[in-house]
Amino acid sequence: MKLAIVLIGYGNVARRFVTLLDESRDAFRARGVEPVIAGVATGRHGRVFEVAGLDTARVDPALAAGDAGEPASVPFLASALDRLRIEADHVFKARVVIETTPLDVRLGQPAIAHVRAAFAGGAHVITANKGPVAIAYRALAAEARAAGVSFLFEGAVMDGVPVFNLVRETLPGCTVTGFRGVVNSTTNFLITAMERGEPFAPALKRMQDAGVAEADPSLDVDGWDAAAKGAALANVLLDADVTPQMVEREGISAETASRAVATLKDGRRLKLVASGQGRGAGARVRVALEDLPADDPLAIVDGQANALEIDTWPMGRLVITQRDGGMEKTAYALVTDLLTVARRLRNGSAE
Amino acid sequence: MKLAIVLIGYGNVARRFVTLLDESRDAFRARGVEPVIAGVATGRHGRVFEVAGLDTARVDPALAAGDAGEPASVPFLASALDRLRIEADHVFKARVVIETTPLDVRLGQPAIAHVRAAFAGGAHVITANKGPVAIAYRALAAEARAAGVSFLFEGAVMDGVPVFNLVRETLPGCTVTGFRGVVNSTTNFLITAMERGEPFAPALKRMQDAGVAEADPSLDVDGWDAAAKGAALANVLLDADVTPQMVEREGISAETASRAVATLKDGRRLKLVASGQGRGAGARVRVALEDLPADDPLAIVDGQANALEIDTWPMGRLVITQRDGGMEKTAYALVTDLLTVARRLRNGSAE
Repeated sequence: MKLAIVLIGYGNVARRFVTLLDESRDAFRARGVEPVIAGVATGRHGRVFEVAGLDTARVDPALAAGDAGEPASVPFLASALDRLRIEADHVFKARVVIETTPLDVRLGQPAIAHVRAAFAGGAHVITANKGPVAIAYRALAAEARAAGVSFLFEGAVMDGVPVFNLVRETLPGCTVTGFRGVVNSTTNFLITAMERGEPFAPALKRMQDAGVAEADPSLDVDGWDAAAKGAALANVLLDADVTPQMVEREGISAETASRAVATLKDGRRLKLVASGQGRGAGARVRVALEDLPADDPLAIVDGQANALEIDTWPMGRLVITQRDGGMEKTAYALVTDLLTVARRLRNGSAE
Repeated sequence: MKLAIVLIGYGNVARRFVTLLDESRDAFRARGVEPVIAGVATGRHGRVFEVAGLDTARVDPALAAGDAGEPASVPFLASALDRLRIEADHVFKARVVIETTPLDVRLGQPAIAHVRAAFAGGAHVITANKGPVAIAYRALAAEARAAGVSFLFEGAVMDGVPVFNLVRETLPGCTVTGFRGVVNSTTNFLITAMERGEPFAPALKRMQDAGVAEADPSLDVDGWDAAAKGAALANVLLDADVTPQMVEREGISAETASRAVATLKDGRRLKLVASGQGRGAGARVRVALEDLPADDPLAIVDGQANALEIDTWPMGRLVITQRDGGMEKTAYALVTDLLTVARRLRNGSAE
C-alpha cells in the first residue's frame, strides 16, 4: 500500500527520518508498504509539495529557492491534504502527517493546530513533539477516534525507545500505577559535571558549544522539558488529564552543585526525576531532584542515556533504559509509528 | 470469540494462569475473547477433559480422584484436540495448548513432543518451557507456519517481561546484533551471598529451604538454565540455530566465593552473564562469569531481578530490567501470548 506523507518541520530529526525510510526499505517491503513523501513544510524556509511525490534529494534546493511569502503551515497542510484526497485518493491508501516542530511548553502551538488540521483532512498523525500529548492528549485522542485515524507519538519521550509502545503492544491487560524516569539529558549531563566539581555555568557553556544544550537552556534547566515528558507519560499511561503547568516542578541551578557533590560523597547519586503516581483524576505528577541509592536503575544513567521505571499490576516494576541517545533514535520512532499505521490499515482495526 | 484451552503441566505457573485469566477478564472482554479451559494434564496426577469446558474450581479434586492408568500426555493431547475439533468446532474459534512442563535441557522432552502434537492437532502453542525454543526453535517455527498456527513463548526467558515481544512488537525493522543478560536468579542470589562473605554450601542450602533453588541445583549452578535461555534468545533474536549444548558454558561453585569478594572489593560486581554476538550461522553464545563496572545495568541486578541488554541497529543498546521476579509474572506471560493469539485470529494475519 502507498502512504502519502506530509512532513511538518524539517529539522535534523525529519531529515534523518527521510534517509532512514530508505535504509529501512526491507522492513517496509516485507509489509507491502510504500511511503511517499508528498509535502515538506518548514518554519522559515518555505514549503514544497507534489501530489505525485517529491524527489527527496531535491527537497533542500527547492526549499532554498522557496518563496517566503508562502502560506503558513496550517493552511499549507489543509491544502496539501485536500489535494491529495481529491487528486490522488486512488493512489494512496492513506495520508500521514509527520509533525516534528519544536516544543512550545505553554500552549503546544502550532503543533496542536497541525494535529487538528491533519485530523480535519482525514490524515493519521505521527509526532515527535511532546506538546500535543503533554497538553491536550485526552481531547486529541478522542478527536482521532472520531475521525477514524491514528495519533501516535513514540518519539516524544526517550527518543525512539519503546515507552508508549511497550505498554500498548507488549503489556496488554497490565495496569500502570506509577512511573519515574530520568528523561532529560541536558540536566543529567550538568548534574554529572557538577558531581565532578565543575561549576554550573562553564558546564552549561561546554554543553551549548557541543550542541547538547540549547542557546536558551531554560526549557531544560528549569525542568520544563521533564515536566512536559512527565505530563505526556501521565496522560497516556496513567489516564491523567494534566498539562506541564500542573506538574510540581523543580529545576537545577548553580546551587545544585554542592548538593550533587555531597550526594556523591555519600555514595548516592543526585538525579532530576520525573514521576507520576495514581491514576485518572488522582494522578500526581512531579519533577524533582532526588538522592538515589547507587544501585537504583535510574542512578546509573549518565550522559545521553535515559531510563524509565513503570510500576504495574501484575508485572511489578519494569525498567527500560536507553544507553545510546540521539536524534537518529527519534527518527526511528517515526518509522515504527508509520509501520503501526500501516499495520492498523491492513488489519482494519485499531490494533 | 471462544478459545478452547488445554493445559499440559499444572504446577504453580499454570494454576496462577487460571486465576489470572479471571482477574484479567476486563482485558479479554474488551477484545471479545472468552478463554475456556477444556483440558488439564499433569505428569503424575492424571488428566481431566470436558469438551464443553471444565469447572476450574473442580479441577484439583478431579485430578486427585484421577486414574493413574490414564494415557500419557501426548496421546491425551492428541485425543483432546481431536474431540474438540470433531465435537466443538462450531463453538471454538481456535484451540490453544499451554505447555508448562519442567525443562529438560538435554532433549527438551516431552515438551517438544507436546508442541508437535499440538501443531498436528491444529492448535496454537504457548509455552513457558524454554526447552522447545532453546533446542528446536527453527524447526518448530517452520512447522507452526506450515500448520498456520502461532508458536509463542514469552514466559521462557525473564518470566513475563517482554523480551521476545519487545523486539517483535515494538522494534519493527530493528536488527538485533547482540545481547547480554543476567537471567538466572539462583546463581545471582548465590553470588550476592558470597560477595557478603557467606560460603557457597550454606547459601545454597538457605535458598533451597526458601524454595528459590531446586533440590537438585545443578541446572542452575552449572549454568545450564542460563545456557538454555541464551540459546533461546540467540535462536529468536539473532536468527541462530544453536542448542544449550553448543553454548560455551561456565557455572558457579565454592571457588567462586573468593573471586566474588575480590571483585566487590575492587568496586565491581561479579555476575553470571549469558550473551550472544553476531547473527545466523555466525552467532556465538556463551555463559560466563564477568566482572562488571558497578554502574553497568547488569551489575545492579540483585535478588530475583533480571536484566537483558540488546544491541540493535539503529536504536543502539536498550536494557529491559525486571525488578520484581516470580511465578505470577510467568503466568502473565501466558496471558499476553493468549491475547496475541486472539489478535492474530481477529486480524487473520500473523501480526
